[in-house]
Amino acid sequence: MIHTQSTVKVRYAETDKMGLVHHQNYITYFELSRVDMLDVLGVPYRVLEEKGFFLPVIEVMVRYIQSNTFDDQLTIHCIMEEMPKVKIKLRYEVYRGDILTNTGYSLHGFIDSTGKPTRPPKCLVEAAGKHFQSST
Amino acid sequence: MIHTQSTVKVRYAETDKMGLVHHQNYITYFELSRVDMLDVLGVPYRVLEEKGFFLPVIEVMVRYIQSNTFDDQLTIHCIMEEMPKVKIKLRYEVYRGDILTNTGYSLHGFIDSTGKPTRPPKCLVEAAGKHFQSST
Amino acid sequence: MIHTQSTVKVRYAETDKMGLVHHQNYITYFELSRVDMLDVLGVPYRVLEEKGFFLPVIEVMVRYIQSNTFDDQLTIHCIMEEMPKVKIKLRYEVYRGDILTNTGYSLHGFIDSTGKPTRPPKCLVEAAGKHFQSST
Amino acid sequence: MIHTQSTVKVRYAETDKMGLVHHQNYITYFELSRVDMLDVLGVPYRVLEEKGFFLPVIEVMVRYIQSNTFDDQLTIHCIMEEMPKVKIKLRYEVYRGDILTNTGYSLHGFIDSTGKPTRPPKCLVEAAGKHFQSST
Repeated sequence: MIHTQSTVKVRYAETDKMGLVHHQNYITYFELSRVDMLDVLGVPYRVLEEKGFFLPVIEVMVRYIQSNTFDDQLTIHCIMEEMPKVKIKLRYEVYRGDILTNTGYSLHGFIDSTGKPTRPPKCLVEAAGKHFQSST
Repeated sequence: MIHTQSTVKVRYAETDKMGLVHHQNYITYFELSRVDMLDVLGVPYRVLEEKGFFLPVIEVMVRYIQSNTFDDQLTIHCIMEEMPKVKIKLRYEVYRGDILTNTGYSLHGFIDSTGKPTRPPKCLVEAAGKHFQSST
Repeated sequence: MIHTQSTVKVRYAETDKMGLVHHQNYITYFELSRVDMLDVLGVPYRVLEEKGFFLPVIEVMVRYIQSNTFDDQLTIHCIMEEMPKVKIKLRYEVYRGDILTNTGYSLHGFIDSTGKPTRPPKCLVEAAGKHFQSST
Repeated sequence: MIHTQSTVKVRYAETDKMGLVHHQNYITYFELSRVDMLDVLGVPYRVLEEKGFFLPVIEVMVRYIQSNTFDDQLTIHCIMEEMPKVKIKLRYEVYRGDILTNTGYSLHGFIDSTGKPTRPPKCLVEAAGKHFQSST
């Protein structure tokens, strides 16, 4: 399992008329947390794209347990429970202090620069593999 | 069943570096389509809020089947399959011409202006009821 | 002079905690109105990009006179007062009914697909020229 | 003069089809940098709003000198050159490393919770005053 954490300070532009973080923004919070995870793994998403690999989103889900508002300091947990195969699944948990405010997941495929489905990039598989080797 | 359609022309600001509609924007497309559905039902969301009713999102899911890009003309179908009870569930389908590009759903609760859970507003139940009466 | 109009219905996601349209969104409203102007001129921005022309923003200004809120129906006026030369300047006026709520402008250059500054595309100059010929 | 700095790592959602940061996002970068300035001054914007003070934007301008892209680390400088009076003006400079990529300003008024123009909050005037006293 790989588990990383990112911090977000809610921007004013991310609030809505209800006075809370508009529900759309958690999609972006999830995204930046998986970018951070790839940084931690040593295979930054920027580099993956330069190598011609893209990870389009196939499915995304967000559950809203508690609301957040402007200026709140949030911790986004990004969790990879299984090795990337044809697809990669990531789970997310959003906390404000001790309070779990959101959960969710995203499912991604791998495509090359021509848009064709491809195997996950070797560098990602190797980097992730180090965190899953103990299971053998 | 209630089924309405909304049209969206993809904005440049909604695209991303991959050259496609960034996946976050479908959440907004879903939202505007349910606002349109409430307009069609004669209970605009603006009016619901003025009466002190809010429909926070409890859960949202999007599935990405085909990508869309700048200037694409999309049709967002919003479908209510069951009468609103404590919760209300809406399904969505996004089409570019004949091509189904996305599906998804959102689940909402009802709260009053103090943030307390409440029964769905009577005007909404009555308006929706007209479309479900045939089932008796 | 070229003068076109676009209509926008304010999305919930575009509001903020103050209950109003977040000031950032007018930048997007301006953008979609100039995309509409290019459509009216018969040189859609999508086509310009396919031909390898891009119009990056060099400068943008927005003035906020009156606020707008969720579900407001806005008319965005886009005005080209001078023929495109090395740069192109567009002025904007946002109205809610009779009320002028915003003004602004954007200034653009022309670059080719390699990012190099270039002359404005011939098709755009010709299309715009028809609206300025009377001045001779 | 008051001068603070904020750091932003460009989010994928902030890029557009041109592969660059969409020009709209600088408005948000400016906003978060002035929120940070108020934090540094000890009068967080969140607290100002709780006290019933709001700083609506009257005018905003952005100049685009160099483009930025996904994952770039930006430093946003926020500069207050004059004491807040009826209005408050802030200047911004965006840097990627040593490279100045953007400049701009925002002009704000002060309103109370009923939307009426009001004098700047005393706590803000006092906090800012400490940085301007040397001029007497």
